[in-house]
Amino acid sequence: MGETLGTLGEFGLVAALLARPVESAAVPLGPGDDAAVIAAPDGRVVVSTDMLIEGRHFRRDWSGAHDVGRKAAAQNLADIAAMGATPTALVVGFGAPADLPKAWALEFAEGLWAECEVVGASVVGGDVVRADRVVLGVTALGDLQGRVPVTRSGARPGDVVALCGRQGWAAAGLSVLSRGFRSPRMLVDAHRHPMPPYAAGVAAAVAGATAMIDISDGLVQDAGHIAIASGVVVALTSAALPIDEPLRETAAAFNVDPHVWILTGGDDHALLACFPSRTELPEGFVPIGTVGTGGPPGVLVDGRPYTGSGGHDHFR
Amino acid sequence: MGETLGTLGEFGLVAALLARPVESAAVPLGPGDDAAVIAAPDGRVVVSTDMLIEGRHFRRDWSGAHDVGRKAAAQNLADIAAMGATPTALVVGFGAPADLPKAWALEFAEGLWAECEVVGASVVGGDVVRADRVVLGVTALGDLQGRVPVTRSGARPGDVVALCGRQGWAAAGLSVLSRGFRSPRMLVDAHRHPMPPYAAGVAAAVAGATAMIDISDGLVQDAGHIAIASGVVVALTSAALPIDEPLRETAAAFNVDPHVWILTGGDDHALLACFPSRTELPEGFVPIGTVGTGGPPGVLVDGRPYTGSGGHDHFR
Repeated sequence: MGETLGTLGEFGLVAALLARPVESAAVPLGPGDDAAVIAAPDGRVVVSTDMLIEGRHFRRDWSGAHDVGRKAAAQNLADIAAMGATPTALVVGFGAPADLPKAWALEFAEGLWAECEVVGASVVGGDVVRADRVVLGVTALGDLQGRVPVTRSGARPGDVVALCGRQGWAAAGLSVLSRGFRSPRMLVDAHRHPMPPYAAGVAAAVAGATAMIDISDGLVQDAGHIAIASGVVVALTSAALPIDEPLRETAAAFNVDPHVWILTGGDDHALLACFPSRTELPEGFVPIGTVGTGGPPGVLVDGRPYTGSGGHDHFR
Repeated sequence: MGETLGTLGEFGLVAALLARPVESAAVPLGPGDDAAVIAAPDGRVVVSTDMLIEGRHFRRDWSGAHDVGRKAAAQNLADIAAMGATPTALVVGFGAPADLPKAWALEFAEGLWAECEVVGASVVGGDVVRADRVVLGVTALGDLQGRVPVTRSGARPGDVVALCGRQGWAAAGLSVLSRGFRSPRMLVDAHRHPMPPYAAGVAAAVAGATAMIDISDGLVQDAGHIAIASGVVVALTSAALPIDEPLRETAAAFNVDPHVWILTGGDDHALLACFPSRTELPEGFVPIGTVGTGGPPGVLVDGRPYTGSGGHDHFR
């Protein structure tokens, strides 16, 4: 038997999780005290938090610890990017059973760090407690570098609606796993951890994006958040949606319509942004619709309310 | 039957939890977007996170939802105070079963807010997910207002060690509840939610504290964190420990030594700080020992290593 958290001890685990000393001007005081101190040169700090529960947001038999760490970091870092900010730091609450293998905890920490390094952020603090299953509470901080935050509420009639990043891949990967397959590997990996287009968030803000959101619950549902917050109609054109090759092939193999994954799939953390109509879209953004006013705030797909499998409500 | 989270729906709950709009110059952008934006006028931000699990950190039959909300906020806000900073904002991850009464969630949110208002902070974001039991991930932010953060590592030989706030009350309250009693009410309430001496954190920093920690795991254990981080001996004098009247009376009734509660009890979030020897201690701080060098870094009580019931390790 390998070492477990029980033999390792709580404080050993905390140390292991956060062992990597942070030497960065962006982190005046790193892990190990009552709190960490992070540079906020803008004079403001962007903050977002997410909770992930084993069995609900990930399965230990479907995702390795490194993937779970990357996913936990990525979904928070993507929220920072969706404001047009640059992520700076992450803190993590980690609940786990005493019989969790030590190796799992260490690989999880590696995954957290790996994803943070993609954006130049650091893991600066944590709390480790005993729980029946793995429970993660992750909070990300970011810096606006002097820019105005890009909210959900600034979309204006006439704006172009554009999408950046993989969308539908994680949902397709989950379909693959649910049917007992382990490939195509690219889709399965996309379910295991997203690859949000972080840099596109800042690029969109610089280009003048009027509204932005990262797609965590589904394209239609998250577009709806922009529509409601902005008081507009978001009109999507299904023919404009990019159907990436792995999606097309797997949908054909499963005899399903890949649009369902793209319109309703969450967890890819693609960025959906609105831009004034004559904006030159930043690299990676593809126009998929327009903002209008013809009707109550909401989302139309090809001119009609979308009636396919809908969004995601954890409690209903 | 009352309403539960299942009937209320996830997004309704999120709205209910965070319904109170924040109108404050300290919160340029409040709840409801991918992330919130908090003022950080110092150009740095202090951050700390904690996780609380039902059945481990609180029991729903022993603590009301309002108490749990206050406790969850307080233990994070105290970490900010222990750096000599002023808390500004809180974000919360909230996991709960679908059959949790709606009223519980709303009272929890009220408790969070009530504790935040003690220090002038705001709840600026949250994430709500389904879980088998109530699981809380709370992160607090704070502002240093230009001061140097007070860490655990600055204690110097000759310093005075001083304590501010209730210490041992929560442990005594837990003893009371564990024996099937519900009074003295003051002690039981102290277990249900701490009353950290927030303002004393800033006062200690201003007075020149060399090291500080909030006592969450026990006086001896947390003094040990200062001792190890500073490379010093923290020598406590048991006769100097303030034994508050409710502790004295209840200890007599239970025929126990109240020093055990004071030396090993956690969860009160009293502040333990070290000051240069001639410092006029800020209001509320009581000298309870000195910093020395006679031996390996650690804690002595009346000149000897403390051998009573020790600290708290969630996994061992």
